[in-house]
Amino acid sequence: MNYQSILNEIQNEIKPLFKQGQVANYIPALAKANPNDFAMSLITLDGEEYNIGSYEKKFSIQSISKVFTFTLALKNYSKELYKRVGHEPSGDPFNSLVQLEYENGIPRNPFINAGAIATTDTLLSLYKDDTFKKVLEFIKETSMQDDIIFNENIYHSELEHGFRNLALINLMKSFKNIKNNTEDVIQTYFKQCSIMMNTKQLAKSMLYLANHGINPKNNERLINESQAKRINSLMLTCGHYDASGDFAYRVGLPGKSGVGGGIVAIVPKKMAISVYSPKLNEKGNSLIGTKALELFTTKTGLSIF
Amino acid sequence: MNYQSILNEIQNEIKPLFKQGQVANYIPALAKANPNDFAMSLITLDGEEYNIGSYEKKFSIQSISKVFTFTLALKNYSKELYKRVGHEPSGDPFNSLVQLEYENGIPRNPFINAGAIATTDTLLSLYKDDTFKKVLEFIKETSMQDDIIFNENIYHSELEHGFRNLALINLMKSFKNIKNNTEDVIQTYFKQCSIMMNTKQLAKSMLYLANHGINPKNNERLINESQAKRINSLMLTCGHYDASGDFAYRVGLPGKSGVGGGIVAIVPKKMAISVYSPKLNEKGNSLIGTKALELFTTKTGLSIF
Amino acid sequence: MNYQSILNEIQNEIKPLFKQGQVANYIPALAKANPNDFAMSLITLDGEEYNIGSYEKKFSIQSISKVFTFTLALKNYSKELYKRVGHEPSGDPFNSLVQLEYENGIPRNPFINAGAIATTDTLLSLYKDDTFKKVLEFIKETSMQDDIIFNENIYHSELEHGFRNLALINLMKSFKNIKNNTEDVIQTYFKQCSIMMNTKQLAKSMLYLANHGINPKNNERLINESQAKRINSLMLTCGHYDASGDFAYRVGLPGKSGVGGGIVAIVPKKMAISVYSPKLNEKGNSLIGTKALELFTTKTGLSIF
Amino acid sequence: MNYQSILNEIQNEIKPLFKQGQVANYIPALAKANPNDFAMSLITLDGEEYNIGSYEKKFSIQSISKVFTFTLALKNYSKELYKRVGHEPSGDPFNSLVQLEYENGIPRNPFINAGAIATTDTLLSLYKDDTFKKVLEFIKETSMQDDIIFNENIYHSELEHGFRNLALINLMKSFKNIKNNTEDVIQTYFKQCSIMMNTKQLAKSMLYLANHGINPKNNERLINESQAKRINSLMLTCGHYDASGDFAYRVGLPGKSGVGGGIVAIVPKKMAISVYSPKLNEKGNSLIGTKALELFTTKTGLSIF
Repeated sequence: MNYQSILNEIQNEIKPLFKQGQVANYIPALAKANPNDFAMSLITLDGEEYNIGSYEKKFSIQSISKVFTFTLALKNYSKELYKRVGHEPSGDPFNSLVQLEYENGIPRNPFINAGAIATTDTLLSLYKDDTFKKVLEFIKETSMQDDIIFNENIYHSELEHGFRNLALINLMKSFKNIKNNTEDVIQTYFKQCSIMMNTKQLAKSMLYLANHGINPKNNERLINESQAKRINSLMLTCGHYDASGDFAYRVGLPGKSGVGGGIVAIVPKKMAISVYSPKLNEKGNSLIGTKALELFTTKTGLSIF
Repeated sequence: MNYQSILNEIQNEIKPLFKQGQVANYIPALAKANPNDFAMSLITLDGEEYNIGSYEKKFSIQSISKVFTFTLALKNYSKELYKRVGHEPSGDPFNSLVQLEYENGIPRNPFINAGAIATTDTLLSLYKDDTFKKVLEFIKETSMQDDIIFNENIYHSELEHGFRNLALINLMKSFKNIKNNTEDVIQTYFKQCSIMMNTKQLAKSMLYLANHGINPKNNERLINESQAKRINSLMLTCGHYDASGDFAYRVGLPGKSGVGGGIVAIVPKKMAISVYSPKLNEKGNSLIGTKALELFTTKTGLSIF
Repeated sequence: MNYQSILNEIQNEIKPLFKQGQVANYIPALAKANPNDFAMSLITLDGEEYNIGSYEKKFSIQSISKVFTFTLALKNYSKELYKRVGHEPSGDPFNSLVQLEYENGIPRNPFINAGAIATTDTLLSLYKDDTFKKVLEFIKETSMQDDIIFNENIYHSELEHGFRNLALINLMKSFKNIKNNTEDVIQTYFKQCSIMMNTKQLAKSMLYLANHGINPKNNERLINESQAKRINSLMLTCGHYDASGDFAYRVGLPGKSGVGGGIVAIVPKKMAISVYSPKLNEKGNSLIGTKALELFTTKTGLSIF
Repeated sequence: MNYQSILNEIQNEIKPLFKQGQVANYIPALAKANPNDFAMSLITLDGEEYNIGSYEKKFSIQSISKVFTFTLALKNYSKELYKRVGHEPSGDPFNSLVQLEYENGIPRNPFINAGAIATTDTLLSLYKDDTFKKVLEFIKETSMQDDIIFNENIYHSELEHGFRNLALINLMKSFKNIKNNTEDVIQTYFKQCSIMMNTKQLAKSMLYLANHGINPKNNERLINESQAKRINSLMLTCGHYDASGDFAYRVGLPGKSGVGGGIVAIVPKKMAISVYSPKLNEKGNSLIGTKALELFTTKTGLSIF
């Protein structure tokens, strides 16, 4: 299949959509994103690479970071992790406290905020002060890129407006499902959200999930096959908050979106795809990114269904 | 792959589990099922067929019927249907009224009871008194079996204990999301739930979903490719009530379970698999059926992830 | 105190409010009420009587009937009744199913619809086919008026639009908290809602609650002192759905409102007051009626607080 | 009426209940209370005083402090306060986040934790660093006692286990319904909860609510008549969390309980009564305290209903 010409077609077809959606504005640092940006990268397990748009431009990966931290935690904790974070879709917005209160502080899955925060907490228990460094190193390893950093400005902006996440942490603490210091947890969590990557790097960094746990670049196994499939399954059922069903329905690929405008998706055994466009739909997912991926599976027939 | 020997292995490995779980007992007619029954059937798109256990024994398909009625409705209604039934996982038990009240009578998806009832209501608007006949005919067509009937005894037993479903219907009526007479809706719905099939028939009847909408036996297109993929996606995200994420996580295939003990699963482009064992786990899905399918994808690597 | 001149003042002061609020329109029969109607009646335990406005005009008492049926049921059942209907404010609208589902079909209190329906169900178990007749007789007895009837037109209109209440009944049936036939329950309930009374009759009919259970006209004890106080307490905490706190806060008297525009209030050991004005506030209580009673306690200092 | 002999009778009649209930144990400092303690004080507007049990022994007033801070805030803010804190019963436990999330961070009433915290926040905006000092001064003024202090040990213990309240504060902050620094809010709130008083002091301190806003000891008006009645009304409908209806039903007096085992109740125009017994019922209110007050109104007929 000529993937490059498919990317070209997609870029054309999404043009009318730039009028819709809204850049995330809950923190000033994100609100500054260029609403006209669009980038898409596709990297196959054999190393073929196709890009379009501003694919070298870095953006804040936000919730996409939850995939990396969950992978790291799953590697280290497995069974204990399952007791502290579920794997069911929540049916609620990303930051809801309702289910958490009804279900004794156990988040429904690792891809809503509460679940990602509990996941980060397990990493803090293991890596202590090195936690964020280890997360960065892991991303550098999976993406085979050295220049992965976080954005201080976004990080501090998140911290200043992080009341909802502090509420989640304290509620979980009241149920003893957060073990570390609140400050350490929130800081590590917001640092991971503020990591900057471009679509090329993001697509590369997720190839291990398309390749059943093995980094195809160096053949190193990061997690076992079953773990890789389970992360894909979680991305399919829970990767887009309360629009996860809709994404599965339209796109038909495991994926994870971030409020910064990025989405990454996996075609098992074949490739990873990443897209960036900062205007969001009403559920907080990239409006054009979602459409671009829908066009991609329609054109290629690469839906897993 | 030697599927027959894999089925043999599975039959062996599930034996210790017969002590667990509980046969559905909310109606006497279902409570009479033999707790030791087990059957599994696998049919490929090329017509290969593998069976084990009591695969000729018919059981009540219950919620699996929701896949047939949704297919029929999608064929006929498409866009209108999307306004009346969503496609997001609910995160709630199959018969909850909570979300329905909060969301103005629009069920989250067609595979919870409210959604299946609204789907049946759209069929009633189209086929009137012939509705249940049309549903049966459709199943006969997809399964290419003539002897598909419903069980009068189970049907009447359901009707006598159908208060929760009557509550759902009346709540949706109060939001004008049920258009037909309550009696017609509940009777048609319980008749479809009381349809009796064996695992062989069930596996055959779902091949069109593995084959992108075309019945592989006679090459007739039942629905278009996109519709078939979307039904698969819905089975993955919503096919097992509030254990849908868990099923996706463990089994990794689109599937639909019924409280009668049946489960059907799809390997896209390859095959349909059906399993029967009446003892249920605490979420109302066949305990041994779920495990058998988990063993199947572990042994064959046929998870979609 | 010169109650008549206080009623005159109130009639003057509420005039500007007739522009606000909206007549109940969920059934055509209620929507026909004259939005400019206003009546107020005050009857003391010594038999003094003061009226203003259209106090001879009958209106549909709707939810005010819940006080009569609860009194009858409490007389007969006491302890069993407490197991089937709670006595806590619900914090939810009058017809919500949410709490009922979470709390296993036990309504929070007898003055939300579900609680009143369960109460009527206990009367049906006792009086069978005579139930509604007994309710009417009880009201005739307490009001010492013979011409208490129900409005057939309103009754049938309610029945045609009664889906939400049918949902409540069926949900309670699924929890075995309704024992009688659905049709009997809904018909009896809607008949009691369709009873027609004027403010004079209503005020008279509630004097037993101001008089600790004894009808002051004939000195007959209807319920014991403790029961009378408890009904007053329930009216204060639960008499106005999710605006009960607000009514207690502004008016400071036990009271019960109906969507037909009536409100009745009790000054313990002193009097009963009834007011009618069909335009409702957003919580479904008479807008002018509430204000008139607020003015009354402000002017007289007769709040129980 | 011979109140002293009534107190004697009550002390006798509650004896069998000491086996039931459980001392609050969420913080070690409260768990140390003597489960056999019992005290009751009754002070009339004319200055008559009756006591029984350990009425000189101080205990932590906990949520009873919410009445003092709300009085202070109402004095100063009135209308603005109504926008930030409602006056409806919540139907939920004292520390629930669910309603707060659904209702945009506006607590249902000032006597659940969230509402009391928002109230304290309004005081912080006014009195800044002097806030807690002002609260203490107000209690000293209303009780005409100089030795009102808070318990440092309990205060620190609360702070260490205050995660649920921190979750409430942060959730309200995310809705901009807390204006001051989190640390200042939580510290002031926990200091007010840790105030120590005995039943004599508590009864005295609440006489202004029985006296329509005027301290009967020195005839100083603290709040206006309407405000006093409204606080009484709030105590009746919301003073005991999700057992408020039950307290109104059984006792029939406006009252406020604290998890430390104290309850204070008001007989309008007559007296204030305070009771202490640290073992709590399942709703978190003093088990024996509630019963003692129920016996009191049964014996005296002093229910407001």
